[in-house]
Amino acid sequence: MKVNGIPRQSIWVHPQNPEIIQIIDQRQLPHEFVVEDLRTPEDAAVAIREMHVRGAPLIGVTAAYGMYLALLQMSREGRNAAWLASQAKMLGDTRPTAVNLQWAIERMLDLVATGGPNLSQMALQKAIEIEREDAGFCKSIGENGVKLIAEIAARKDGPVNILTHCNAGWLATVDWGTATSPIYHAYDAGIPIHVWVEETRPRNQGGLTAWELGQHGVPHTVIVDNTGGHLMQHGMVDMCIVGSDRTTYTGDVANKIGTYLKALAAHDNGIPFYVALPFSTFDWTLRDGLKEIPIETRTPDEVKQIRGWADGKMTTVDLFPASSPAVNYGFDVTPARLVTGLITERGICEANERSILNLYPEYAPFA
Amino acid sequence: MKVNGIPRQSIWVHPQNPEIIQIIDQRQLPHEFVVEDLRTPEDAAVAIREMHVRGAPLIGVTAAYGMYLALLQMSREGRNAAWLASQAKMLGDTRPTAVNLQWAIERMLDLVATGGPNLSQMALQKAIEIEREDAGFCKSIGENGVKLIAEIAARKDGPVNILTHCNAGWLATVDWGTATSPIYHAYDAGIPIHVWVEETRPRNQGGLTAWELGQHGVPHTVIVDNTGGHLMQHGMVDMCIVGSDRTTYTGDVANKIGTYLKALAAHDNGIPFYVALPFSTFDWTLRDGLKEIPIETRTPDEVKQIRGWADGKMTTVDLFPASSPAVNYGFDVTPARLVTGLITERGICEANERSILNLYPEYAPFA
Repeated sequence: MKVNGIPRQSIWVHPQNPEIIQIIDQRQLPHEFVVEDLRTPEDAAVAIREMHVRGAPLIGVTAAYGMYLALLQMSREGRNAAWLASQAKMLGDTRPTAVNLQWAIERMLDLVATGGPNLSQMALQKAIEIEREDAGFCKSIGENGVKLIAEIAARKDGPVNILTHCNAGWLATVDWGTATSPIYHAYDAGIPIHVWVEETRPRNQGGLTAWELGQHGVPHTVIVDNTGGHLMQHGMVDMCIVGSDRTTYTGDVANKIGTYLKALAAHDNGIPFYVALPFSTFDWTLRDGLKEIPIETRTPDEVKQIRGWADGKMTTVDLFPASSPAVNYGFDVTPARLVTGLITERGICEANERSILNLYPEYAPFA
Repeated sequence: MKVNGIPRQSIWVHPQNPEIIQIIDQRQLPHEFVVEDLRTPEDAAVAIREMHVRGAPLIGVTAAYGMYLALLQMSREGRNAAWLASQAKMLGDTRPTAVNLQWAIERMLDLVATGGPNLSQMALQKAIEIEREDAGFCKSIGENGVKLIAEIAARKDGPVNILTHCNAGWLATVDWGTATSPIYHAYDAGIPIHVWVEETRPRNQGGLTAWELGQHGVPHTVIVDNTGGHLMQHGMVDMCIVGSDRTTYTGDVANKIGTYLKALAAHDNGIPFYVALPFSTFDWTLRDGLKEIPIETRTPDEVKQIRGWADGKMTTVDLFPASSPAVNYGFDVTPARLVTGLITERGICEANERSILNLYPEYAPFA
């Protein structure tokens, strides 16, 4: 998607020097656009661990490039297989809960196991393949989801108002994003749209979504998380599209904390509530999302403080009394009964077992 | 309620010098406890306008004391009736939408109209009367509401978990608060309780609630506004109590933005949702809250920025791209169907016309 008029991805091979991988240091967004060079597997590990990059798909691709950088360093410095294994472990340990991370590293290790000359060149091709694969999934999600937006546009005057929560945008993937992909496809096709961007406390990923949309030119308005219900009561939202961190094969959706509240409001006001996700987000082993999906608790500091821009730099301010405890649940589960449909790279299905397995029959044996 | 072990109100007559009114400068809370002297009607007007004090009941009492300070200055400086009228107008113009403000000023002007010697002394007595009246209403709300908490405590082991939104606490009134009054009464009676305090973006009044509860010793935990639904899904909330800015005689409740979302979650999980309010909050002229209660939009800066404590002072940080628009609705309306009951100074009633007018029969002719 575009930044300052120029098409960008969240990660790419340096155009003049393929021994350098470039990323956007997202810690400075939405206030400063900083490109960072990754030259070693350690650079890639730091970028993942300290959240220069975030979002499960992008983390996976960054780890794949990290393995490529490890193979480069291995051939340059004559390191052995034990060293390479230590680099794989270092990359895998950066964010223990991200499934895509382990999966990407294992795909790179499988390649190494095949041996052969020019292993680092092969690794570069494999990492690029993983990168393009992710961008392709996201593109397909958009091509499928844009039809829903077009249908609403055909029925109404004025822009289609879409509400989204968190950042399921291209900054969390390689390109297009998941929840944002139908939005970008609609905008690029000239369908009039306007996006309500929820702040998404405590980490304010709404700031990233607002930045993405603004840079690409998509009309949008920022709101606090409390506001979505009021907008829906007053006919100011035509549909909701959110992402997902994990979805059961029965259609229960774990996503950023607060998603459930918006699904309730959409249901109460007869507004369609869609979840956009690639197949890798489905968990084929879980039947009851509310009971079975573990919900991560994160540091209370994220609730009690906030980072923002003051005097030209990122500044952290305290919001609550030092003596007041806080709790920080990262996600909640929206029951399938509140979800209108799932937008995937294969098409749109209902949020139930029959419809999901109809789209992904090869996973039926696991469910 | 207590601050650092000492019982406090949000406004009081200086104990050694009745020509000084004292308030808490709430702009520094929850980080610093600052007492401010009001010596002139201008001081009172600034305190209201610049939100050293906030909350409709407290604003009304502050304006009443402002009129007392005007009468003091009038007798000291030999001002005339036109000057007094200008002071009343100055105080009335500080927060145009606060009903209690005009009502308090009119009660003081009625007193002036009676004439007589020692008018400033009579004004002091009248302002104290308005102050005590508000504290009395809030105390009665607590005495009525505590029974609901006691009933839940009798049925369960461990503390009663109460979720509240915004600050309907003693800092918004003279003492006790509205939503917090049943909580303080329960705590003082030794009933085990724990309060989930919602941050309440964009103005973070949850910080005031956390400060109040912490100072009085009430166990509590701060959460972001997105978290309440998840807690309710997992049995971690026994009841909700919120305040109200305006309630129709049919039971629709306007309150701080985001209240509706919590009422939906409470309803979805079978959790009682109560609204605590004094009679002055009822609007006897409105039948349909969603259609008829006007919702104030405030400056987008409150959404795009946040104030917090850094390096020993209040600091404002930017959260969003400068070019992204934002919108800031102050309140939303919770339909009566989602409200379990109203806790008033006269007792508890259902959120419907029959039950409300049964408690306030003298208002039936206006409804």
